[in-house]
Amino acid sequence: MSGTNKRQLSKSFAEGDGDGPAVILIEPQMGENIGAVARAMLNCGLTDLRIVNPRDGWPNEKAVSASAGATLVLDQARVFDNTRDAITDLHRVFSTAAIVRGMVKPVVTPREAANEMRGHWSAGRKVGLMFGPERTGLVNEDIALTDTLISVPLNPGFSSLNLAQAVLLIAYEWWISGQDVEDRYFHASAGQPASKGDLHNLFDHLEGELEEAGFFSSEDKRPSMVRNIRNMLQRTALTEQEARTFHGIITALAGRKKRRKPDHGGE
Amino acid sequence: MSGTNKRQLSKSFAEGDGDGPAVILIEPQMGENIGAVARAMLNCGLTDLRIVNPRDGWPNEKAVSASAGATLVLDQARVFDNTRDAITDLHRVFSTAAIVRGMVKPVVTPREAANEMRGHWSAGRKVGLMFGPERTGLVNEDIALTDTLISVPLNPGFSSLNLAQAVLLIAYEWWISGQDVEDRYFHASAGQPASKGDLHNLFDHLEGELEEAGFFSSEDKRPSMVRNIRNMLQRTALTEQEARTFHGIITALAGRKKRRKPDHGGE
Repeated sequence: MSGTNKRQLSKSFAEGDGDGPAVILIEPQMGENIGAVARAMLNCGLTDLRIVNPRDGWPNEKAVSASAGATLVLDQARVFDNTRDAITDLHRVFSTAAIVRGMVKPVVTPREAANEMRGHWSAGRKVGLMFGPERTGLVNEDIALTDTLISVPLNPGFSSLNLAQAVLLIAYEWWISGQDVEDRYFHASAGQPASKGDLHNLFDHLEGELEEAGFFSSEDKRPSMVRNIRNMLQRTALTEQEARTFHGIITALAGRKKRRKPDHGGE
Repeated sequence: MSGTNKRQLSKSFAEGDGDGPAVILIEPQMGENIGAVARAMLNCGLTDLRIVNPRDGWPNEKAVSASAGATLVLDQARVFDNTRDAITDLHRVFSTAAIVRGMVKPVVTPREAANEMRGHWSAGRKVGLMFGPERTGLVNEDIALTDTLISVPLNPGFSSLNLAQAVLLIAYEWWISGQDVEDRYFHASAGQPASKGDLHNLFDHLEGELEEAGFFSSEDKRPSMVRNIRNMLQRTALTEQEARTFHGIITALAGRKKRRKPDHGGE
């Protein structure tokens, strides 16, 4: 499922988007999940993966096969034997965790976390995203080492994400917060938009043929019928090529009708 | 990885968030992916799953096991044998597809798609999200049946998502666009924030002990030293309980110091 388009091709690691928060996985269990995390990271331009006590050791073949080619991330992943060593060089650590009774922490949405991480990042501070083991999540000792909790406000009736999905959503917000992309644009590689002149020729052609075909039943309804047709065609925002095609359609239909006339509709 | 917190518990299907865009999977290949899609959908409150010609038939055991309990979605999923039948009742269809040369379509980001879908939805129009087969993506014939392309602006050097991840990112934007959640709040289930009075008592206690300990080397530096200490404590936004703890810390340290004095620092 490719999400690339030419608008983004200018954006690249060269601009530093390839850098960004470190992702710290605490005691991840399945290699497949580590690989899927690496894929999600690289999707969002993150490359600094740190793994604390991976259950099945490191390197891990299953991680490689699940990474869908994000080996760049796996190859430079670093393994640590405790959380403190894994985050020593960082200035701010965010972690996803269920809210824990008795823990006093600021809690932010992924979008707010992305904004705050951008702020730290552009001020030259290194930030990290910490994720706990698949089943159990972060232990309180590790939560106590983090600055801010990230709470993903999903369907409260079914909010559990797998590890790679949690990484993807937060890394996605980080990546998007650094993008400058048009929310909406018109893709018309098929050619130039039709000029107003092209469009008006089309109006004339269609309305002339409709006239001849007796389409305009009553003279007083005619102006509004014409307006409606023009609004409809206007809205389609035709390209030059599409306008030519439309001329052809009109000619074909009108021609067929005309041919039919002499032999009383026989064909 | 739970993203639920009490702030969201008020949000529920009752408010209609459980409804929303239909997700249409065209010729999905692996049951695991269909199950992961169902999970991502329910994470984001979507329940209307439509499947066109699933390769391995339907129902699919692997889909159930991969759905992590999102059977609500799988149980009511509908299977169709062509795309047109699957979208007949919808008013607007968005689809994720690589930009195709020669196709004339508006292209939007997932966030913009969510906004536009909300607009249609609140106007009573039914919308759908269409996704193609894992490897090949949507064929041009299906793209031609959709109104708007969604392009996920990920790392242009590594932008390919798996099916469930693509569904998750777009469903996530839909869900978030309907949420009204504080971007940042302070979680202090441990108790009430300390009042200014509590804080000022702490200032007095600490500064008094520091006075006695000869901490304020020079009188002219003293005011700024006091300000810095107060700013530091202010910033920690203590709870009542934490303020009491801090009083205890001061007393313990100062007491130890005092005990130490007579025997010349020996212990």
